[in-house]
Amino acid sequence: MHPSDLFAPAFPAPPAFGQARTARTDSSVDSAADIDALLRLVASGGPAEPRRRLIADAAPAAALAAGPSRWHRCGLGASQQRALRQPDGRTLEAAHAWLAQPGHHLLGWHHPDYPPLLRRTPHPPLALFVAGDAALAWHPAVAIVGSRSPTPAGREHAGAFARSLAAAGLTVTSGLAAGVDTAAHHATLTAGGRTVAVLGTGPDVPYPRSNNGLHAAIVAEGAVISEHLPGAGPRREHFPSRNRILAGLSLGTLVIEAAHRSGALITARLAAECGREVMALPGSIDNPLARGCHRLIRDGAALVESPEDVMELLAPLAARLAGDLRTRLEAPISEPGPPPGTGSGASPAAHPPGDPDHKRLWQALGHDPTDMDQLVARTGLTPARLSSILLLMELEGRVEAQHGRYYRSR
Amino acid sequence: MHPSDLFAPAFPAPPAFGQARTARTDSSVDSAADIDALLRLVASGGPAEPRRRLIADAAPAAALAAGPSRWHRCGLGASQQRALRQPDGRTLEAAHAWLAQPGHHLLGWHHPDYPPLLRRTPHPPLALFVAGDAALAWHPAVAIVGSRSPTPAGREHAGAFARSLAAAGLTVTSGLAAGVDTAAHHATLTAGGRTVAVLGTGPDVPYPRSNNGLHAAIVAEGAVISEHLPGAGPRREHFPSRNRILAGLSLGTLVIEAAHRSGALITARLAAECGREVMALPGSIDNPLARGCHRLIRDGAALVESPEDVMELLAPLAARLAGDLRTRLEAPISEPGPPPGTGSGASPAAHPPGDPDHKRLWQALGHDPTDMDQLVARTGLTPARLSSILLLMELEGRVEAQHGRYYRSR
Repeated sequence: MHPSDLFAPAFPAPPAFGQARTARTDSSVDSAADIDALLRLVASGGPAEPRRRLIADAAPAAALAAGPSRWHRCGLGASQQRALRQPDGRTLEAAHAWLAQPGHHLLGWHHPDYPPLLRRTPHPPLALFVAGDAALAWHPAVAIVGSRSPTPAGREHAGAFARSLAAAGLTVTSGLAAGVDTAAHHATLTAGGRTVAVLGTGPDVPYPRSNNGLHAAIVAEGAVISEHLPGAGPRREHFPSRNRILAGLSLGTLVIEAAHRSGALITARLAAECGREVMALPGSIDNPLARGCHRLIRDGAALVESPEDVMELLAPLAARLAGDLRTRLEAPISEPGPPPGTGSGASPAAHPPGDPDHKRLWQALGHDPTDMDQLVARTGLTPARLSSILLLMELEGRVEAQHGRYYRSR
Repeated sequence: MHPSDLFAPAFPAPPAFGQARTARTDSSVDSAADIDALLRLVASGGPAEPRRRLIADAAPAAALAAGPSRWHRCGLGASQQRALRQPDGRTLEAAHAWLAQPGHHLLGWHHPDYPPLLRRTPHPPLALFVAGDAALAWHPAVAIVGSRSPTPAGREHAGAFARSLAAAGLTVTSGLAAGVDTAAHHATLTAGGRTVAVLGTGPDVPYPRSNNGLHAAIVAEGAVISEHLPGAGPRREHFPSRNRILAGLSLGTLVIEAAHRSGALITARLAAECGREVMALPGSIDNPLARGCHRLIRDGAALVESPEDVMELLAPLAARLAGDLRTRLEAPISEPGPPPGTGSGASPAAHPPGDPDHKRLWQALGHDPTDMDQLVARTGLTPARLSSILLLMELEGRVEAQHGRYYRSR
């Protein structure tokens, strides 16, 4: 499903992202020409910023058609311009073929569906190739990262945190690496949660190869995301840059176990640079894989002991995203509500989102704590769907949760 | 040995403590009458502040002789005044008998030998009973505290940190309790280091009784300190107040393992209130005895992984104490040097302390790193004595240590 099928196209683009995209609000579906132009821009390589600038105010096809003088004004270098004039036909053909398959998407910088949290980072990629449910790039997410060879306890913690955070409605993002990443993805899938893998290879190239099966399962149940063209193999320099996407898509990054010099620490620092929450699990001083976490904590990362700690830390950031999310994902077409930040005095409880599932859940909730089984029985909705709506309601301050039971807070 | 035998009496009182004690600088040995008066004041009980005020500017005997109108001006309450007029003869007699034994001391608030770090705390005791080497109350010290029933790893960590910190020249203070306290005292003694036990009972009452032998060993090799009269039994309310002395005597407090509600956390908070360093060892999130430590770290305590971390954190506080210490303990009688803070431009290296051991060590040190065995061979001094002098030299910035090897830094 293309995210634009899911995101009602009549909606205005979320207003908080501050990108001038007025020329694009007439349609949220890229034309074939735009997709082709965007692929050429991706394939031209080099610094992303001039290429982002080129399509910030214009659709990709129009931006390319504007020609070399405009390319030059936007700062494209000689080799980028040469690549645009003489594209590698086989590469483009392969990318088109990949995109033609079901569940494969390309989200460009110019597009209102470009993930809002990633847009607000210092070095956002020009475009994302997505295999699977692209809407997940908009969900409140937490990155769970760590050592490629964790201790057994580290592996268990990765799984346990992933399970609990997924059950609470968060998407679990990670890097498909061995060890902690694998444990986090796997536990989320097993628990029926949502997981996103961000790759340093092309979206169709599992790395390590041993995660072939996990890659396929994530494509089927969640989403695999990459800034690299389909077919791109593993290259050492792509993994740190992959980490900036992982950090940028997520409200926060949780480091489970990490040696003193570890890729997970890079992800954590990139998360801090984006203003996201950085969290680390402490460990015994006798565990060398706790060193990296301890270093992060000393440098200001939050020490977390439980998934509840993570939820509490992410709530303020998630609340900011919730307005955008509700507008774009959940709000009723007939009753869009005021845009976030306009300070309407109306109580949210008086205007529950018009979505029928929201209404059903709101009516099933009382001021006495009610557990998930009761809510399932009363609404007929799945626990996953209920969790997702409950998370939004919690973030909006309408619902409180205590020991797995939920009640109206007003 | 009474500390006044050790501290050269011709020295001025350290200038940094800011207490008006000019009336007392003519002598640093209490008269029998002063000791008797101080014991009466201790035995009168009640709030310490009025009693401290009474002897801040006057010797205890003179202060008591000044009579009720002066007692009243200093804020002594009715029951305190009654107790001063009608003292319990048996209690006083027992205290005198205890003090008459070798190695037993009483350090009053009025006296220049009152421990300088403790003097600078919000609620210093009126007087300290000391059994053993009272000079240790002046040494740079670190408190090592924690659970009464630690995990085996916690017990090992307490011992390992105590050993290393004692070998680095720090005095290890603790509370003689079971568990972490016992491990810290025991390891320090075994390593030939200096340890001080601060009790919530009288100085002659081991608590728990199972630590009878440890109590005796600390009296023989280190010092036992209490604000309570000899013979005072264990009372629940005395243990938190004991912790303020433990924290106040120490440059910092290190918590090894502690449950969520633990006496060690009280000591840590009292240390923070005194402006001392609070340090905690992290642990696995599956270890309930790491909870208290994690809570402290979240509240701002330093996460430490090694004894070197502790040394690094204590160095700035120790450096402030070092000036006082050198003046009072280590500086040559013939060459007292400028008082701390007067900003003499002379290089310390040009004026090494006149103590012959200092001179010998300074000559044995070069600009190439030299290990302890070589220093022992060159100077004929014990490793313990060398460690102690090296610590002072390090704190003064004259010596640097790297991987257990020492060299002149200028």
